[in-house]
Amino acid sequence: MLGYGFMGKAHANAVARLPMFVDDAPAVERDVLIGRDEAALAAAADRLGFARTATDWREVVDDVDAFYNLGPNHVHPEPTIAALEAGTPVLCEKPLAPRLAGAERMADAAADADVPAGVGFNYRYVPAIQYAKELIEAGELGDIRRFRGRYLQDWLVDPEAPASWRTDAERAGSGALGDLGAHTVDLARFLVGDIERVSGPTTTYVDERPAAEGQGTEAVTVDDAYSAQIRFENGAAGTLEASRVAPGRKNDHTVEIEGSEGAVRFSLERLNELEVLGPANRGFETVLVTEADDPYLEHWWPPGHTLGWEHTFVHENAEFLSAVADGSAYSPDFADGLAVQRVLSAIQESDERGEWVAVAQ
Amino acid sequence: MLGYGFMGKAHANAVARLPMFVDDAPAVERDVLIGRDEAALAAAADRLGFARTATDWREVVDDVDAFYNLGPNHVHPEPTIAALEAGTPVLCEKPLAPRLAGAERMADAAADADVPAGVGFNYRYVPAIQYAKELIEAGELGDIRRFRGRYLQDWLVDPEAPASWRTDAERAGSGALGDLGAHTVDLARFLVGDIERVSGPTTTYVDERPAAEGQGTEAVTVDDAYSAQIRFENGAAGTLEASRVAPGRKNDHTVEIEGSEGAVRFSLERLNELEVLGPANRGFETVLVTEADDPYLEHWWPPGHTLGWEHTFVHENAEFLSAVADGSAYSPDFADGLAVQRVLSAIQESDERGEWVAVAQ
Amino acid sequence: MLGYGFMGKAHANAVARLPMFVDDAPAVERDVLIGRDEAALAAAADRLGFARTATDWREVVDDVDAFYNLGPNHVHPEPTIAALEAGTPVLCEKPLAPRLAGAERMADAAADADVPAGVGFNYRYVPAIQYAKELIEAGELGDIRRFRGRYLQDWLVDPEAPASWRTDAERAGSGALGDLGAHTVDLARFLVGDIERVSGPTTTYVDERPAAEGQGTEAVTVDDAYSAQIRFENGAAGTLEASRVAPGRKNDHTVEIEGSEGAVRFSLERLNELEVLGPANRGFETVLVTEADDPYLEHWWPPGHTLGWEHTFVHENAEFLSAVADGSAYSPDFADGLAVQRVLSAIQESDERGEWVAVAQ
Amino acid sequence: MLGYGFMGKAHANAVARLPMFVDDAPAVERDVLIGRDEAALAAAADRLGFARTATDWREVVDDVDAFYNLGPNHVHPEPTIAALEAGTPVLCEKPLAPRLAGAERMADAAADADVPAGVGFNYRYVPAIQYAKELIEAGELGDIRRFRGRYLQDWLVDPEAPASWRTDAERAGSGALGDLGAHTVDLARFLVGDIERVSGPTTTYVDERPAAEGQGTEAVTVDDAYSAQIRFENGAAGTLEASRVAPGRKNDHTVEIEGSEGAVRFSLERLNELEVLGPANRGFETVLVTEADDPYLEHWWPPGHTLGWEHTFVHENAEFLSAVADGSAYSPDFADGLAVQRVLSAIQESDERGEWVAVAQ
Repeated sequence: MLGYGFMGKAHANAVARLPMFVDDAPAVERDVLIGRDEAALAAAADRLGFARTATDWREVVDDVDAFYNLGPNHVHPEPTIAALEAGTPVLCEKPLAPRLAGAERMADAAADADVPAGVGFNYRYVPAIQYAKELIEAGELGDIRRFRGRYLQDWLVDPEAPASWRTDAERAGSGALGDLGAHTVDLARFLVGDIERVSGPTTTYVDERPAAEGQGTEAVTVDDAYSAQIRFENGAAGTLEASRVAPGRKNDHTVEIEGSEGAVRFSLERLNELEVLGPANRGFETVLVTEADDPYLEHWWPPGHTLGWEHTFVHENAEFLSAVADGSAYSPDFADGLAVQRVLSAIQESDERGEWVAVAQ
Repeated sequence: MLGYGFMGKAHANAVARLPMFVDDAPAVERDVLIGRDEAALAAAADRLGFARTATDWREVVDDVDAFYNLGPNHVHPEPTIAALEAGTPVLCEKPLAPRLAGAERMADAAADADVPAGVGFNYRYVPAIQYAKELIEAGELGDIRRFRGRYLQDWLVDPEAPASWRTDAERAGSGALGDLGAHTVDLARFLVGDIERVSGPTTTYVDERPAAEGQGTEAVTVDDAYSAQIRFENGAAGTLEASRVAPGRKNDHTVEIEGSEGAVRFSLERLNELEVLGPANRGFETVLVTEADDPYLEHWWPPGHTLGWEHTFVHENAEFLSAVADGSAYSPDFADGLAVQRVLSAIQESDERGEWVAVAQ
Repeated sequence: MLGYGFMGKAHANAVARLPMFVDDAPAVERDVLIGRDEAALAAAADRLGFARTATDWREVVDDVDAFYNLGPNHVHPEPTIAALEAGTPVLCEKPLAPRLAGAERMADAAADADVPAGVGFNYRYVPAIQYAKELIEAGELGDIRRFRGRYLQDWLVDPEAPASWRTDAERAGSGALGDLGAHTVDLARFLVGDIERVSGPTTTYVDERPAAEGQGTEAVTVDDAYSAQIRFENGAAGTLEASRVAPGRKNDHTVEIEGSEGAVRFSLERLNELEVLGPANRGFETVLVTEADDPYLEHWWPPGHTLGWEHTFVHENAEFLSAVADGSAYSPDFADGLAVQRVLSAIQESDERGEWVAVAQ
Repeated sequence: MLGYGFMGKAHANAVARLPMFVDDAPAVERDVLIGRDEAALAAAADRLGFARTATDWREVVDDVDAFYNLGPNHVHPEPTIAALEAGTPVLCEKPLAPRLAGAERMADAAADADVPAGVGFNYRYVPAIQYAKELIEAGELGDIRRFRGRYLQDWLVDPEAPASWRTDAERAGSGALGDLGAHTVDLARFLVGDIERVSGPTTTYVDERPAAEGQGTEAVTVDDAYSAQIRFENGAAGTLEASRVAPGRKNDHTVEIEGSEGAVRFSLERLNELEVLGPANRGFETVLVTEADDPYLEHWWPPGHTLGWEHTFVHENAEFLSAVADGSAYSPDFADGLAVQRVLSAIQESDERGEWVAVAQ
């Protein structure tokens, strides 16, 4: 596992919880944690339950049964490709890469390797999202016509919030677009289908921020927010938006899908709920997706005993690691990751050109 | 008053309620109701409290103290311009005209006439919207950065819902765009400022519908839905959307405004409420805008005794008729109506051209 | 009409709106407004549309087609009984009287008179409440097991809010109990059935308040809040509560009803909505009760164009005045008013005795 | 740990998660799991991470550093007392015992033992509840006047839901009252203070249910629902209610507290949120209690990345096991458990006597 910050903790926790909650998950050893700062790395390995540490990923990517790349975006391509070339399955956080070229190389490497290569689109694993997909596939909403996805946070609304790799185009590729929008685009593809073309601007409100370390300021070279209109290949239309400067929104990822006969609404801040309007409803019905026969719920608690954000990672890791153990296919895979990246890239291009841009296929 | 359907009822009721609720409103006689079907017209005049009827607006528009044009969009220009040329104040429903040229002629006529010429943007008169404007003007939200407006209805989601002038481009000009979007664009201008450029598609899902009268079907020549991205002259950005085929949404006009320091949210289906996030809030605060010192509330009931949709017309008529009586200026006026129409027109043009379009000034 | 304050305005407005909105309502003249202060009375009569005024109800109660008693509670019995004895139909605001004895005399007078005698339980006329009753009567909730009713306001939470007849036991009889609780008890009876016994305390938090006029303070001799448990004759159980010192609650009258197979929830602050859980629902469905075929909605606006608090009075007056015109029965009548008063009285007795008290029949 | 069902899983998981999330929690070995069915026990020990198993608690309660009693209520007293007499710290699930006598003996044993004896009132450990307590203690709500607590579930609404120890008075003591009400009473005491007297009925709607095993039916000898009114020693008043037959409610534990200057509202189904009305608010503010400086949140994720129901157990175990390790005091302790039980018992007595009952001190 490369990375021991936010995502490292989320995945290490997920792996640790499998034996108690997911009966048919494979046995997993947390073997080696990779990072640069030896002292911090050792402390993290101890806390996260890893047996050993490494400061150079080159030494280990061919030596493990699976490689998790949880580093900043610019650290995704090289180690990931090396692992895949070594025949090591990879789970890589999203977006695949800062720029499209890196993502393409990664997807090529995954196509050449005969091992699972997954992307960390954990919101597919929210039970309410899976339940929404079941409703859509069962035709409960009729023909899908419209997707609305919006991911709002406020952690950069304070102009004194410091710069980081997440505000630097070189390392992150983009801002709210890649950080948050990648999730929304993935859900759009998961729930509705491939995206054909996009139109949309990105915006930066705060041009420089206090440097992450030391004194002075750093330029903000990524977007604070984006919005986009999209057209799906199946004719459905949609709108996307994300912001890291939306006052009062902590982690508000909302998705709405409308069809010719029904609709669903979801908000990540209330992730146990799905609002459903089916053919028999007059208004939206608030379904608490916590019954034993709801997706992934057989692993957890009695109805109404809600899950949290982190549980999506448990489901994700159970699926990915089972695929690794079985040698079976896993999705969302790098082809999905690349498809998302092409949408993100097309939005950036649309922003520059001021017109609709076809998504590369 | 020309028109005795939905809007005729809304305005006649508003006028009738003034004496009991708005102390300083002028005394108003409901004089003459204009329509074509004499029998229906007579019944409506009786019900709505008009003294007499006329089947030709030409006979009366120069003979009244104020002329209300509440007919279908294609009936707006000619009688309105005639009234203005006769020096008669006009209140015209929105959008001003089916197409931009008509709206321009109307605005020219209003500019030449020295009388109030108002447009029926009644949602400016929701107390919660007025309260939002007060907060914005007081700087409570900081610099305004983003506007989100969405107006969703479902009365055309059934493909067997019949055609009408509202589904006919010749008479209506556009569909959800002009019918619903005009309101949203007006609120965007009212609350944030002038719109500089737009980008956005319109969509029609149901191409033909049962004819309104008789047998057979009629082509639907307007949009079922539109969405747009907008850029304000002051640098703020926004997204707009409307639909008449959104399952489960009855009259869901939502507006969100974000600034550098706060945000507000509004939904017409809960029009007595404004959700406010000011500098001192951690989360959104649901304010019931029904205190005696809230906008327009001194006319009504004790706190918490909620108003309905129709009350917006009472406030609107009180303001318009006071301007007529006083000879003072009234807004939203035809310049506002034209500005909205230019945005609608630019969205249609953007839909055709697939790129951002500057709004004519 | 006796009284020209809050309730006078609500009823005068309702009567005035009948011709435009309720086709089959009888024609009604607002004839004579009764009060003591001649100057204020004349101004009110002018504003509320009454033809004449009177300062002594004795002179007019036998001289009108219907008498509205909208005065403070202690003014209810004598004029009401006189009107009934004169064969004049009466609509009296709730609660019937400050104390049970007065209510009994009024109910006796109504039983002896062969004219409609209605009580102002306007919340029966909320469309969503009527819709709930339809669901219950259709068996959608199964056997009714539990009723929860709660009416919270905050206008007395400030200890400096002045005293009035509403805080004086002599004139009001009780505080939150009679003022607010009367409504809740009526809805309990309307929706579930007769109440057999009760148990519950009343509480006063602020013992004295600034005098309404002049200087000094007045003792508060009524309750600020009450809560009660109830048992219905049909075996269902329930809880009641009201407060005029509940911070942040403006007019929050909530009702929940649970049966063996379903449930409904209602809140007056969102009076256009009913939350419904029927046999086919997983969770509560938010129904906007604004369709043309919903109760009383044929009189008003298209779906989603919401009504306000005052509309309940229009429905109430349409029903009451139709009964007067037709000589037909009207409910809620004085027998209902007495039944409610017996529950209120039993709660007061329970408060004194600290035990369950059977409601007199 | 005695018990490996629902509660066993919740506590074993909590203990397992401490090292990764709670830096200063003591190291904990999951040593011995106690149960009767050897095969099921072995499987559970494997899944829950215990080193060994035992079928007789007598053999182990003096042999461990802490004893968790997570069995059915009737299994609480004897092993718990034995452990305490052996000087072993105990964490016992709620309610302490089926009947008051058992709880008293347990509290006596705890008083005699000089070790932590905790009761499983895990809802004290919801961050939003802790935050509410901070607000109350800081005086933000003024003098506390009213507590409303309600715990609704629906898992017994189906009359064919089978009997279990939870529907049997012998083993459970009571039904919704002890199972759910114990939590609510604890929160009332935690947030407001000691309860002086109570009044309230219990109700059983379904008298017999299919036997848990085999054929035929079993009598239901506990309540399906209860409601109560309470008076606190500090003069505040309150209402309590619980049901296991409330249609559509999965785990709806709501708490509202009103003071002279503010109020808070909480619902377990949205446990990351607290609705707050402080002196500066016009309406309730929805606070997402997920900031790093919110109670217990420093252990988890960035703002808005919500926690689930199970996290309350992590916080609870961190506190309890730290007390065990440090030899420090822990609360909620058995005195709290006994105080709750006295309230439950007084409610049962009130149900029988039909009057207010003083809570034993």
